[in-house]
Amino acid sequence: MADLLVVGSVALDSVRTPFGKAEEVLGGSATYFSYAASFFTTIRLVAVVGADFPRTHLDLLERRGVDLGGLQVASGPTFRWAGEYGYDLSEAKTLDTRLGVFADFRPTLPAHFRATPFVFLANIDPELQLDVLQRVERPRLVALDTMNFWIQGKRDALLRVVREVDVLVINDAEARMLTEEANLVRAARRIVSLGPRTVVVKRGEYGALMARQDRFFFVPAYPIESVFDPTGAGDTFAGGFMGALARAGTVDDATLRRAIVYGSVMASFTVEDFSLNRLVRVETAEIEARYLTFREMMHVGD
Amino acid sequence: MADLLVVGSVALDSVRTPFGKAEEVLGGSATYFSYAASFFTTIRLVAVVGADFPRTHLDLLERRGVDLGGLQVASGPTFRWAGEYGYDLSEAKTLDTRLGVFADFRPTLPAHFRATPFVFLANIDPELQLDVLQRVERPRLVALDTMNFWIQGKRDALLRVVREVDVLVINDAEARMLTEEANLVRAARRIVSLGPRTVVVKRGEYGALMARQDRFFFVPAYPIESVFDPTGAGDTFAGGFMGALARAGTVDDATLRRAIVYGSVMASFTVEDFSLNRLVRVETAEIEARYLTFREMMHVGD
Repeated sequence: MADLLVVGSVALDSVRTPFGKAEEVLGGSATYFSYAASFFTTIRLVAVVGADFPRTHLDLLERRGVDLGGLQVASGPTFRWAGEYGYDLSEAKTLDTRLGVFADFRPTLPAHFRATPFVFLANIDPELQLDVLQRVERPRLVALDTMNFWIQGKRDALLRVVREVDVLVINDAEARMLTEEANLVRAARRIVSLGPRTVVVKRGEYGALMARQDRFFFVPAYPIESVFDPTGAGDTFAGGFMGALARAGTVDDATLRRAIVYGSVMASFTVEDFSLNRLVRVETAEIEARYLTFREMMHVGD
Repeated sequence: MADLLVVGSVALDSVRTPFGKAEEVLGGSATYFSYAASFFTTIRLVAVVGADFPRTHLDLLERRGVDLGGLQVASGPTFRWAGEYGYDLSEAKTLDTRLGVFADFRPTLPAHFRATPFVFLANIDPELQLDVLQRVERPRLVALDTMNFWIQGKRDALLRVVREVDVLVINDAEARMLTEEANLVRAARRIVSLGPRTVVVKRGEYGALMARQDRFFFVPAYPIESVFDPTGAGDTFAGGFMGALARAGTVDDATLRRAIVYGSVMASFTVEDFSLNRLVRVETAEIEARYLTFREMMHVGD
């Protein structure tokens, strides 16, 4: 079992869906990632919150053994995001983004964070991702997520950091945007040519795929009758994925495949309730049961 | 190996895609179905064409051993369909439909067709599907396809025939329309409650899923870099699926799963060229190679 470092956002979200609403609840890429990954290994979190951030949220992460040594508490308001989903839950409409202390975020790595073997650079400014990457000591595996905002606004910096990572975790629309390829198979191959040996494409209700050279691996999404709130599903997926890799301590093809299934398992819980509510209730036995269900759903036999 | 009967359309298609166009080429649900299924078992085809239908197209099917004893040649023009696809190849825009002799189609079953163990009712008027179903003698398995036109226009007749079949093969949008359920998992469960023990949902570039009571099986689409023309993909899928079932002669869960993979394999060839052009060039070794690739793409390991 190897340690896992994540750099990303910790936020307060306000979300409306056709099924209800939640105000000022715990959110952020590093939050979902850490919580999901904490079922597999020990997590080191690098992020920033404002002085207004509720202590109870930090307790929640600490109870999962998340090392908050890299969490800055800055003066000013915490990053806030407000969004809305229609009946088609595939895409959020952002209603409001208030960066607050996140606007001036400069990640700080405590000395004992620098030699973390598994590193996840969640969706933040690619210049900060690059900065963190230069300060960690020869990690065994680095994965990176990004979003349309950076693909359009900081393409050069993004391509520089993409070149340096082992795995790019990205959603399908972003993969197409980054590569300017409408066909997802070509887009995935193109990303592999940009540097990462492995690309993992998140496809929402259609699951995920992994491409490595000429080999593809596909996993469906868990069949859920009532998707409640998809916020954080992608970050949770990444947390389960990286957590499972760090737990295994290896990164061969078979381990990557199992890790993608674990990512899908964890994401399937997140979408069943607002915020981290469902993740907080989940038990290890449920995780393993869904893992087995996934294998069964994909099993062809001889 | 058991015989397989199909009732559906044989047509002349005119198709435009961003990559080219084809005029008056061989098409129709029963055509794609028969050709694909002919790699697995012997096919009996029930359909109608006009006197203008090119003999060479019939030769093509006969060379695959398709029994054309149920193909009527009526006076009048053959059914013609014209459609167009944009860069998003997921949906065809119909430009023109000329039913011709298909408007008065009354399926006729030669005596030796009546005791066929595997039956596929392709997308035609549900009243005709019901009529055929009443004239076949205790088939081992009956599957049915339909489309939005009948779901909206002949809902009651459609529900009557759906109640009588073992397998409903349908695309995702139609599954949602038929059940008035936006969530595909619920839609699939709802269909099972309408009569068919098994529902197979075709999801285009996202593959297919099978639902039986509480068990799901998912298969991705084959990763194709250049989808050329998706016309006939769904009918080809059904042909591979039903052909593989008929070849096995059994309909247990494991056989159904393998059959869905074979359906996906066959559909992956059809989309690589206009009309049946790619299917006509395909060799058995290629089919088996893609089947193995599918298994590999879905394999999680222990």
